Amino acid sequence: MLGETVSASPRFEYLFHPRSIAVVGVSTDFSRVGPGRMYVEALLGSGFKGKIYPVGRSGGQVFDLRVYPALKDIPGSVDYVISAIPASETPRLVKDCAAKGVKTVHMFTAGFGEIAAKNGKKLEDEVASLARRSGIRLIGPNCMGIFCPDTGLSFELSLPRRSGSIGFVSQSGGNAIQAVREAQTKNLYFSKIISYGNAADLDECDFLDYLTDDPGTKIITAYIEGFEDGERFKNVIRRAARAKPLVVYKGGTSAGGRRAASSHTGAIAGSEIVWESFLKQVGAVQVYSLDEVLDMAVLFNYLTPPKGKAVGIIGIGGGNSVLAADACAREGLTAPLLPSAIRRRLEAIYSSEAGGSFRNPVDMYFAKFNLAHETVRAVADSPGIDLIIVHMTIGWSPKNDVDLAKKHVELLTGICGEVKKPVVVALRPFGPAKYTDATADAEAALFEAGFPVFFSVASAARAINRYVDYYQRRKRSR
Amino acid sequence: MLGETVSASPRFEYLFHPRSIAVVGVSTDFSRVGPGRMYVEALLGSGFKGKIYPVGRSGGQVFDLRVYPALKDIPGSVDYVISAIPASETPRLVKDCAAKGVKTVHMFTAGFGEIAAKNGKKLEDEVASLARRSGIRLIGPNCMGIFCPDTGLSFELSLPRRSGSIGFVSQSGGNAIQAVREAQTKNLYFSKIISYGNAADLDECDFLDYLTDDPGTKIITAYIEGFEDGERFKNVIRRAARAKPLVVYKGGTSAGGRRAASSHTGAIAGSEIVWESFLKQVGAVQVYSLDEVLDMAVLFNYLTPPKGKAVGIIGIGGGNSVLAADACAREGLTAPLLPSAIRRRLEAIYSSEAGGSFRNPVDMYFAKFNLAHETVRAVADSPGIDLIIVHMTIGWSPKNDVDLAKKHVELLTGICGEVKKPVVVALRPFGPAKYTDATADAEAALFEAGFPVFFSVASAARAINRYVDYYQRRKRSR
Repeated sequence: MLGETVSASPRFEYLFHPRSIAVVGVSTDFSRVGPGRMYVEALLGSGFKGKIYPVGRSGGQVFDLRVYPALKDIPGSVDYVISAIPASETPRLVKDCAAKGVKTVHMFTAGFGEIAAKNGKKLEDEVASLARRSGIRLIGPNCMGIFCPDTGLSFELSLPRRSGSIGFVSQSGGNAIQAVREAQTKNLYFSKIISYGNAADLDECDFLDYLTDDPGTKIITAYIEGFEDGERFKNVIRRAARAKPLVVYKGGTSAGGRRAASSHTGAIAGSEIVWESFLKQVGAVQVYSLDEVLDMAVLFNYLTPPKGKAVGIIGIGGGNSVLAADACAREGLTAPLLPSAIRRRLEAIYSSEAGGSFRNPVDMYFAKFNLAHETVRAVADSPGIDLIIVHMTIGWSPKNDVDLAKKHVELLTGICGEVKKPVVVALRPFGPAKYTDATADAEAALFEAGFPVFFSVASAARAINRYVDYYQRRKRSR
Repeated sequence: MLGETVSASPRFEYLFHPRSIAVVGVSTDFSRVGPGRMYVEALLGSGFKGKIYPVGRSGGQVFDLRVYPALKDIPGSVDYVISAIPASETPRLVKDCAAKGVKTVHMFTAGFGEIAAKNGKKLEDEVASLARRSGIRLIGPNCMGIFCPDTGLSFELSLPRRSGSIGFVSQSGGNAIQAVREAQTKNLYFSKIISYGNAADLDECDFLDYLTDDPGTKIITAYIEGFEDGERFKNVIRRAARAKPLVVYKGGTSAGGRRAASSHTGAIAGSEIVWESFLKQVGAVQVYSLDEVLDMAVLFNYLTPPKGKAVGIIGIGGGNSVLAADACAREGLTAPLLPSAIRRRLEAIYSSEAGGSFRNPVDMYFAKFNLAHETVRAVADSPGIDLIIVHMTIGWSPKNDVDLAKKHVELLTGICGEVKKPVVVALRPFGPAKYTDATADAEAALFEAGFPVFFSVASAARAINRYVDYYQRRKRSR
């Protein structure tokens, strides 16, 4: 659909489909934090179908698996090694991997180029060079590695096993994990996530290239702290943005952020390119927080692109209506006056003797929210309206608000598919826990029905503004 | 402390202390929505100490109270009347109120100046003029009225009965209710809230003036859609801002918002003054959402003003540290490099062979978060640091994250009072409900201990930037 030819099997396909994994640095001392053990547990929990070989000096057993004292003691072949040993021992490990015919080494191990001491960078270079000479590809060091639910490759226990269409290249492992968990509440799932840390060998360019060619990935998202080769990076980004929606969150835009990035992944934050204008020019969407990454993924996943930025705003409450309209305007949308025929239709729906607030924004009134579906239909029939935002807050009234919200959600889900214009819901949680729970339930039901749901009118409008820009730029560049 | 003489008893004190209230328009037909009944219930539930007289044509009983057929049938005197009858019947009511010696009429009733039909405005003028001639003061029409927990005056069931130091003048009743509920989760309470709707008689100026002189109100917040008299408004705002911290949220800044405001309260949104520069000039804090109103109230309530905008950022995770620093910079704070002596101290605390991320932002590391208190102490000892933001996310790790968070919160609350620099916490909720609940618990414990808590580093930094600006402007203008 997006006009780029993709190769049947991308170059680094094998990284995501190991038949056997050895986790090196598995301790059987359960009184201590054990990242090696954590990886074994994550692979078991994610249903990895290949062989899992824990490796650790102590031997023994973890999770009913035999712990091998060394890589060479493993009877079968090993495709993929996860390193959770101290940095100083990694050159030896890479040599062992070469001897064993290992194709990929993921270095969870930290203490390389990201540390202040110069020997860190030296060790990183040594390990990378050893790997290169043996034809081994390195992921990391200092990263969580690959998440690929299709093959049961995971870096954290109890991440969802369901696969989706979003690819995420995330220099930070923490952001990757947060993204998976948040996305789950939005009924969004990932095809592949790569946390690649210091990028001593494979880097953001390799992984972006991979996702560009990966048929299972429909939307590419990226959290990037820095890059090595500006020209190559630009070309990769350009190709990715041409092939698929590409959402980029650049970390390290401030002095403190750059300092943190260099301590985090040793990244040089690349002030040599002007990110904003470059990303705009190639048609990528730039965002400024992890929430905004997911907000864009929500739209690319759920919403038919609106033709323009004219929004019909529907919600409950006079004050809320004012605020919703102001927020839309601040974020770049317009809320045109509804035509008089539509206003008359709304007046008829509400049997309004009071004139009513039907000019846009439209106030549904608390007592008459059961007319939500008819209201949405009427506003959608306005020729000047490109899309609709329905805003609602659960917890406004203390009495039967949760039941009302359920009813409201039912009415909205009832019209899904029937209304021809894109409809977005802003669902504002607040107050005591019972309303927060009710909001979570409502959110789940709305996503299930196919509505994109946002935390606030402002965040919805911000994402929609970028979304429409994205499609308008694509259209112009054709 | 803030240098303005306040009168012992502000002019409109009596509005907030009625000895008896009649609620007119109480129906005993429980099959229909009954705003009159709702008010009676709210007053009973809020512990109103005076007499409550329901009035309704049907007579009978509600909540064990006798319903009087008409105002004149009430045996005792009536200070305050809440009108929940149709608009067309209100001129009659005001005449009855005059005969009964009523001092204040709060018109919940809508259908006046805010409606499209011209007779609405005419009726509003008529009622206002009738009241004026009888010495009756009107609140509204088309509003929720007064919330004053001290006297048990309330407009909504199950709002907190606890009184606090925040005054809120809110043209919108919905915003007022949302504010009370949200504030409660932040351990913040209100002295008085006035939802004044169409302001046919008493208006934002009267209520702002009242709060300026009210000794129980330490912080004034306002949601304003429009005003009548620009010169008077400016003088009132100027006097209020001189006396107390004043936070203003202007609704109706966009075309759609102005349209909504005029349908909501008949407000003319007052584009004749340039709000931004005017509010800055008089030393009021302008904000752009209800969340931001409360964020400012949180700081004014909890935080010793920092000397400047240099922030020490402390949190868990490399990626999170990058993002936190970037967010602070975007919102106007700086994150200077920590002096080498402090960095060495942090390295010693963490026994860090890896160099560590101690330059600012400071990465506490997941496995070593139990050093939180020592970390905060060390950063607070940096001469170049004005305040500290600690950021944390609950739900990052699936295993014992809730327990870890509890421990983390204990460590933080343990240092409260001990650290001489202001400390702010950004507590990011996410993911499944159990983490949301754990976040709510952590938030409550931190507020209880006296920390200002924010939803994100960005919202914390935005509020802090405005807060420091506020105090720096005050200092300069002395």
